[in-house]
Amino acid sequence: MRCEVLAVGTELLLGQVVDTNSAWIGEQLAAAGIDSHHQTKVGDNQARIVACIRAALARSDAVVCCGGLGPTKDDITREAIAEVLGVPLELDEEVAVRIEEMFSSRGRTMPVNNMRQAEVPKGAAVIPQVAGTAPGLICRLGDRSIYAVPGVPHEMREMVARAVIPDLVAQSGQAATIFSRTLRTWGLAESALDELLGPHMAELDRAHADGQPAPTIAFLASGIEGIKVRITAKAPTQDEAESLVAKVEAEVRALLGPAIFGADEVNMEAAVGALLASRGLSLGVAESLTGGLVGSRLTVVPGASEWFRGSLVVYASAAKRSLLGVSEGPVVREPAAIQMAVGAARVLDADVGLALTGVAGPSEQDGEPIGTVWVGLAGDAIGGPSAHRFSIGSRGSREQVRQIATISALDLLRRRLLGD
Amino acid sequence: MRCEVLAVGTELLLGQVVDTNSAWIGEQLAAAGIDSHHQTKVGDNQARIVACIRAALARSDAVVCCGGLGPTKDDITREAIAEVLGVPLELDEEVAVRIEEMFSSRGRTMPVNNMRQAEVPKGAAVIPQVAGTAPGLICRLGDRSIYAVPGVPHEMREMVARAVIPDLVAQSGQAATIFSRTLRTWGLAESALDELLGPHMAELDRAHADGQPAPTIAFLASGIEGIKVRITAKAPTQDEAESLVAKVEAEVRALLGPAIFGADEVNMEAAVGALLASRGLSLGVAESLTGGLVGSRLTVVPGASEWFRGSLVVYASAAKRSLLGVSEGPVVREPAAIQMAVGAARVLDADVGLALTGVAGPSEQDGEPIGTVWVGLAGDAIGGPSAHRFSIGSRGSREQVRQIATISALDLLRRRLLGD
Repeated sequence: MRCEVLAVGTELLLGQVVDTNSAWIGEQLAAAGIDSHHQTKVGDNQARIVACIRAALARSDAVVCCGGLGPTKDDITREAIAEVLGVPLELDEEVAVRIEEMFSSRGRTMPVNNMRQAEVPKGAAVIPQVAGTAPGLICRLGDRSIYAVPGVPHEMREMVARAVIPDLVAQSGQAATIFSRTLRTWGLAESALDELLGPHMAELDRAHADGQPAPTIAFLASGIEGIKVRITAKAPTQDEAESLVAKVEAEVRALLGPAIFGADEVNMEAAVGALLASRGLSLGVAESLTGGLVGSRLTVVPGASEWFRGSLVVYASAAKRSLLGVSEGPVVREPAAIQMAVGAARVLDADVGLALTGVAGPSEQDGEPIGTVWVGLAGDAIGGPSAHRFSIGSRGSREQVRQIATISALDLLRRRLLGD
Repeated sequence: MRCEVLAVGTELLLGQVVDTNSAWIGEQLAAAGIDSHHQTKVGDNQARIVACIRAALARSDAVVCCGGLGPTKDDITREAIAEVLGVPLELDEEVAVRIEEMFSSRGRTMPVNNMRQAEVPKGAAVIPQVAGTAPGLICRLGDRSIYAVPGVPHEMREMVARAVIPDLVAQSGQAATIFSRTLRTWGLAESALDELLGPHMAELDRAHADGQPAPTIAFLASGIEGIKVRITAKAPTQDEAESLVAKVEAEVRALLGPAIFGADEVNMEAAVGALLASRGLSLGVAESLTGGLVGSRLTVVPGASEWFRGSLVVYASAAKRSLLGVSEGPVVREPAAIQMAVGAARVLDADVGLALTGVAGPSEQDGEPIGTVWVGLAGDAIGGPSAHRFSIGSRGSREQVRQIATISALDLLRRRLLGD
């Protein structure tokens, strides 16, 4: 079973909006054991949308069209699908009523043009809208399927999970499932990972070639998220796929050791939070160049309130001195980093203090080049006050420097908590 | 002149990495007056990469292949392009030397497999690498062009701007340029914008149909960035395109008024920063549910240090009281929001205080439902202490609530600074 994704919208081609939808749909398809070999972006042009749908159905069993179901003039996915099917659009009374209710329930009168959303290709099955005003569509063309979902991410996700994936799985009839485990690493270059795991990967490739059930290993350079090592196995049952992956995972973990900070959805901040929680420690942060990035990432972790006290974003040097007790002199230095960490722990009444001070650019500071970052740590639980200097370099943007500084600081804290 | 983008990488199809590169390239193509009607993602499979390149060249004059130039086994874009061209791969001595120098300059020994990156299709022109180890490629197939650039965003951007766009423009020979202006709005629904601007858009469409030079207007629902109104004109010269857009922009601004917070790259935080700077005011922030998001967004604005003092991320209620002087009782309430704003301005020695407290979820707090946000303001310059309640609703994720809370708070401050 193969399914393509067609993201519709001129704004996607012009780069005004980044298409994150097809990546998310691709992930759901893979998890459901459905292959996706092509994903395409096309503009709000009916002839080209029609051509893309036909091309997709020539290569694959199904296509999910994402976007172009809105109320405005340039939303023409409904028309394009009707043309592919060779049927007219008809007003769906139930959908019309639901749209009107949606507006009245929010105490708003419905703009006339929203009624366009109630027009569906003749014979198409409607996926009732829950989150928004645009219904989804399920259409058959011989043994092929065309799905249409809104482009608004949370509306699309709800509809794909509720109706599209289940229908695709039912259509596929196949039993094979894909299971994969992603090991997240920080501190090793992709080529270094390749040399560590290369022999192992070659062995798996040979097994594959011999027709044996063997997982595959792939690297995903994820920038500020580090490099992910993805182990994927396809098997008749979930259990078989999982045990195939488990065996290889153990071998990879043995080879990479502490460079692995988490698995699957466990990112660096979640890994740090779990270590703090397991030891009953609380964390207070002081940030300068990252401007709140560390705090905002830590507070995304569910249950962060158990171990995260807060973060003092002291952008002005004066505030560093008055609030954190940083002494006079340059602030991008070891003593300042340590004083900030000690101050953060004290002011926020936390067991552990973490501080970042550095130069994000655009210009150098305190005679230090762009990309210089001092990370300070404080707390008896992690061996008392210390500081570490990172040279991130001026490659990449100011934002990249801030992002790399954030994960580097969290990784340093993680390794201290591990006693590494 | 038409150019497609082909993003190569199985990780893109599986949704493990979001393809932001083709959006960025699409933006550069549009700015250069080059149409891009299709952008495709394909996996690390040579036969499919070859088929996609051939399909792109059948529809368009050029294709930019992005990714698959790395040192590892699954990087096969070089091989695919060579197959399309019908030529062998040859080692490029200059590239090989440059790769070795790249490693030695960083005091590292080069992993053997990096030499694969020095192999280029016979007859291809090399785009020398600056940021990374992967060189780019410019290949001709009759009157068509195939470009290859790395998938690492900052390496790709540098190479596309330096070599690909200039070559495309030279190849196109055409004089027509596209100019567009994006007006950013917050507070109006897409259908409301459509009804305000609809008649105007219809008029422009008619002018277009009559063959007159007329700009087009498009809406871009950009989620937490609000809704963008993009005015685009194509004309023989930059000046003509700009004056066509300027006329329509004035009309749109008159129709939408203060809902427009910025244009083009001016986002909400930049708009707020410009207002503060123009009035010589400094800002201090206190954040609870947003955990540092407000501070991290404000500090992305160049020159933020002129007007941004800092942000006190007080996640623990105890810290709200000890640090900001918030009195006992529920913290998701008007008094707490005002006390936090006043406290932030006092502690950070700022003219204006902005505070956010609310419920991001997953569970309710202080008897308030998920999505309830109180924004507090303080400072004589903006009419003294005040607070405003937002009900963002529990639709969407915890992260969406935090993001919407952030821009809503900044928009409230913006309108206060405008005396709106």
